[in-house]
Amino acid sequence: MPVTPADYPKYMRIAHEQALKSLSEGGIPIGGCIVHAPTGDVLSKGHNKRVQENSNIKHGETDALENLGRVREGLLRECIMFTTLSPCIMCSGTCVLYKFPTVVLAENDNFVGGEDFLRSQGVEVVNLKDAEITKMMADWIASDAGKKIWNEDIGEVSAE
Amino acid sequence: MPVTPADYPKYMRIAHEQALKSLSEGGIPIGGCIVHAPTGDVLSKGHNKRVQENSNIKHGETDALENLGRVREGLLRECIMFTTLSPCIMCSGTCVLYKFPTVVLAENDNFVGGEDFLRSQGVEVVNLKDAEITKMMADWIASDAGKKIWNEDIGEVSAE
Repeated sequence: MPVTPADYPKYMRIAHEQALKSLSEGGIPIGGCIVHAPTGDVLSKGHNKRVQENSNIKHGETDALENLGRVREGLLRECIMFTTLSPCIMCSGTCVLYKFPTVVLAENDNFVGGEDFLRSQGVEVVNLKDAEITKMMADWIASDAGKKIWNEDIGEVSAE
Repeated sequence: MPVTPADYPKYMRIAHEQALKSLSEGGIPIGGCIVHAPTGDVLSKGHNKRVQENSNIKHGETDALENLGRVREGLLRECIMFTTLSPCIMCSGTCVLYKFPTVVLAENDNFVGGEDFLRSQGVEVVNLKDAEITKMMADWIASDAGKKIWNEDIGEVSAE
């Protein structure tokens, strides 16, 4: 069945589960999933792997793409990227490269990434303003782990 | 020794070697390397792994970052990204995320990526206009392998 906006929370739950999986592994709680809009098929999912794999490039969105592997030309133009957090500029650029028409995020209270850039490139950006996911991320950023790791993941430098 | 522009061709040779390594593996001949500007240390190198690892996210630049692994906050702000080809918008976004001050590319005759975007974000972009690397990439794009794989790597769709 084609995906409609009423379905977005259902798919976001999959991204949320990925974020919680990462948290349970001691990782950064951000998850993503890729859904084929014409059919509703969930093609892939993933989560941040900075801690788990010592990775600089595996965020929720890019890890979902990496788990997907190669697909036929143009398939990603028919897909929606779901992510639990406003996508950073790396992940925004990735969505532009592969011409995702829509990016759905759970929240941008904890971080605002490349939303304006995505829109400037014609990508639809939808914010679900999910209270539960917002709290999960806020709690993690305020935790000891978050204080140590979060700035590294978004290219920032902590105050001395 | 601090890196000066006179050193750029020497470091580009490392990225070129990475591109040739990828080519010898049946992969896409694009390579990158990351150099610490204040010391001249080559911190990492990498190449496109679409074919070798079925990867959607490992381009020359991002693979070099992945091979580097986690580093101290702010280190990448002191680094130069070298790449054999004008960086696609995914890799451009990645350089913006980590605040690379300078991106040095070998050529943009075969593809123009996110150079304007990089400049708009304050990143210095230097094009070495390397004839040998330009020919290597042009030859590959025109080859049977290039005709099959190149559009996939840059998010395009081949004409029927």
